[in-house]
Amino acid sequence: MIAAESGAPALEPAFDAGRRLAEYETLLEIGVKLAGSLDVETVMELALENAEEVCRAETSSIWELDEESRELFFRVVRGKAAGAIRGLRVPLGEGIVGSVARSAEAEVVNDVAADPRWHGDPSGDFQTRAILAVPLIAQGKVIGVVQLLNPVDRDRFTAGDLWRMRQFATVLAPTLQNARLWASQQRQFFHMVTALAEALEKRDPYTGGHVRRVVAYSVLLGSEMGLAREELRDLRLAATLHDVGKITTPDHILGKPSPLDAEEVAIMRRHAADGASIVSHLSNPWVLHGVRSHHERVDGKGYPDGLTDPEIPLAARIIAVADAYDAITTSRPYRAGLPAERAAAEILAGAGSQFCPRVVAAFRALFESGGFSLERAEAAVEAISEPEPHP
Amino acid sequence: MIAAESGAPALEPAFDAGRRLAEYETLLEIGVKLAGSLDVETVMELALENAEEVCRAETSSIWELDEESRELFFRVVRGKAAGAIRGLRVPLGEGIVGSVARSAEAEVVNDVAADPRWHGDPSGDFQTRAILAVPLIAQGKVIGVVQLLNPVDRDRFTAGDLWRMRQFATVLAPTLQNARLWASQQRQFFHMVTALAEALEKRDPYTGGHVRRVVAYSVLLGSEMGLAREELRDLRLAATLHDVGKITTPDHILGKPSPLDAEEVAIMRRHAADGASIVSHLSNPWVLHGVRSHHERVDGKGYPDGLTDPEIPLAARIIAVADAYDAITTSRPYRAGLPAERAAAEILAGAGSQFCPRVVAAFRALFESGGFSLERAEAAVEAISEPEPHP
Repeated sequence: MIAAESGAPALEPAFDAGRRLAEYETLLEIGVKLAGSLDVETVMELALENAEEVCRAETSSIWELDEESRELFFRVVRGKAAGAIRGLRVPLGEGIVGSVARSAEAEVVNDVAADPRWHGDPSGDFQTRAILAVPLIAQGKVIGVVQLLNPVDRDRFTAGDLWRMRQFATVLAPTLQNARLWASQQRQFFHMVTALAEALEKRDPYTGGHVRRVVAYSVLLGSEMGLAREELRDLRLAATLHDVGKITTPDHILGKPSPLDAEEVAIMRRHAADGASIVSHLSNPWVLHGVRSHHERVDGKGYPDGLTDPEIPLAARIIAVADAYDAITTSRPYRAGLPAERAAAEILAGAGSQFCPRVVAAFRALFESGGFSLERAEAAVEAISEPEPHP
Repeated sequence: MIAAESGAPALEPAFDAGRRLAEYETLLEIGVKLAGSLDVETVMELALENAEEVCRAETSSIWELDEESRELFFRVVRGKAAGAIRGLRVPLGEGIVGSVARSAEAEVVNDVAADPRWHGDPSGDFQTRAILAVPLIAQGKVIGVVQLLNPVDRDRFTAGDLWRMRQFATVLAPTLQNARLWASQQRQFFHMVTALAEALEKRDPYTGGHVRRVVAYSVLLGSEMGLAREELRDLRLAATLHDVGKITTPDHILGKPSPLDAEEVAIMRRHAADGASIVSHLSNPWVLHGVRSHHERVDGKGYPDGLTDPEIPLAARIIAVADAYDAITTSRPYRAGLPAERAAAEILAGAGSQFCPRVVAAFRALFESGGFSLERAEAAVEAISEPEPHP
C-alpha cells in the first residue's frame, strides 16, 4: 500500500531500534486490549483512546462502511471537532475519507485547503489543516477509515505518523470486524425473535401489535428507572419474548370471545412456564425471568410460582406493568379498551398488590408529565437500537 | 506472574534488540492472523501452527477449561503425541497442565520424570521429557492452557522460550475467548430455536419428534452427499426451522383427523412462505431456502413458488426427502405409519418427479447398505455438534 502524499510529510529521523521496540510493545498492548471486547462501541472508544498513544491529533474519528448503502457513517469521535462531525454520512469515494475508503490506500494531506476534494469544515468552530486517514481492512475488504485531524503541537503529519497509524489500523481492523459480526448476529437473532413473536400474536386476532407495544412501554419504564443500555437491551428481548409460551396454548382458549373458565385459565397460565423453558437455553437471566415471572404479583397471588415482592425479578415487574397497561387500553373479545386515564388509575391502584411500587412510581412520573405515550415509548426503543450497517 | 521452574531453563543469551524486534513483528502478525476468525477450531489450529514460529516442540496442544465441570478438555494437538492425547480430560489442578490452569502461572518442567505430578505418558509411542505450559487468561480468568512437549533438537526449554510463549499466550487468549463466546452464542441460539420448534410441534399431537427426526435424516443425507461441516450445520438449522411457519396455522387444520379440503390445504400451505418471512432476518440462505422451498417438487408441481428442478435450492431438496420419509413412516390422523421398506419404495419412485434424483441416489445408497436409520442419522448430527464448554 502506497500513501498518496499531498504536501509531503516531513522526513522521519533515522531508524531507532529502541524507539521501534517501544512502538511494537505499545501496539501489542493495544491489540490485546482491543481484542478484549466484542462490543462495537467499546472497541471503537478504546481504539480512539489508544490512537492517542500512537499519534496525537486535535480530533480523531472512526468511520464505518455500510456495504449496502455504500456510505461511510460516522461511529466515534474524540477531540475538538466532535460536535461538527457527529451524524455525517459520506458516500464512498467522496472527500478525503471517502477516497481513502475507495482506494484502500492511506493518505496524508498536510494542506487540506489545497486539495480539490476538500469541501471545507462543516462549521466555523474547528479549522482542519491536515488530515491523516488510514483504511481499516479485514479479510481483504475495506470496513472503515480511521481519520486524524491536525497533529498536536506540530504543523504536519510525518512519515512516521503514517507508518504507526497503518500498524495501528492493521491491529484494529480484525477486532473491529469481529465486533461488527457479533453485533450483526445479535441483530439478526433479535429480528427473527421479533418476527416469531409477531407471527405468534397473529393467532389471537385481538392482540395485534401487543408485543411491539409491551416492548416499547417496558423500555420506556426501564429508562425512567435508570437502567443501563445493556440492561434495556436485555429487557427489550425479554419483553419481545414474554408471551412466547403461548405457542402451545390452543386456539380456542386464545381466541375465546368470553371470559375463560377455571380449566381454561389453568391452561392459559401454562404459557409463563412453557415460555421460560423455551428461553432457558439463552442463559440470559433478564429474558428467563421476564418470561417466567411477568404474571407474578407482589402480594404473592400471581403465577406460576406465587413469588412475593422481594423475589420477583426486575424484568418481570416492569413487563407486568407494561403488559397490564396495554391489555387495559386495547379491546379484548369480551370488553372494549379503556382510555389511558382509566388504565393509569388501575395501574396506580395496583401498586403494592398487583404491581411493584417502584415501577408504578416510574409509571406515575412519566404519566403525570405526559411522557407515557406509545410515541415516546417507541423513541426509547429507538434510542437503544444500534445503527444497522451491513458488515 | 512468576514461572515455577523445576530443572531451571538454560540461560538466555544477552538481550538483542534486533532479535526482539523480529519477535515482536512475528507476534503482531500472529495476533492479526488469529483475530481474523471467530471460529474456535480455526483459531486453535492457527494458534498451533503459529506456536511453531515462536518455539518449536515435538508436540503442541491447546486445552480449554470447561468452567462447569472444572476440567480441561483437549481441543487441538500437533505433532508426534497427537494420537495419545486426543480425547483426554484433566481435572483442574491435576498433573502439570492442570496445575498451570489452577495457579495461572506458566511452568517449565525440563525433567518430567522427576516431577511428582507426572503420571507417565499415556502410551509407549511418545516419550515426554520436557514440558512448557502457559495459561491462557482472558478478563482475568484462566480459559485454557497451551502446552509444548520436548523442544526440537534441544534438551531443554529456555527462559527465552518461556518469555516468547507467554507473549504468545497474551495475544492468543482474548481472540480465543471471543471465538468461544461466538460459539456459545450460536449454541444458545440453536438450542432455543430447537426448543421453539419442539414446542410448536406439540400443537399437533400426531407429529411428536418429527422435527428431531427430519433434522437427523437431513444431516445424514447431507453427509452422504459430501457437504462440508459448516454446510451441514446450516442444513441442521434449516431442518430445525422447516415448519416454523406453522406457528400461524390454526389448530383445527393442524389436528384435523381426516384429509384436508381444498381451502384447508391452501391455508396449511401458507406455512412455507410464512416461515420464510420469519427466518428472512437470519441472512442465512440455507435456512431461508430450506424453510421456503421444502415443499417444492422437481416437476414444478410443488409450492409455494412452483420451482422446477434446477431452481430448487439444495437445502430444500434434502429436507423434502427427509420430511417425506418421516411423514410416511409415522402415523397420521387418517392413516397408520408404513414400514421403512414401503417408505423407501415411495421415495425411490418419486425421484425426478417429487424428489431430486441426486438426493434420492444418496438415500438409496444409505438405505441399501442399511445405513438409513434414525440411530445412524442421530450419530451424523452428533458428529457435527461442537463440544459444549462453558466459557
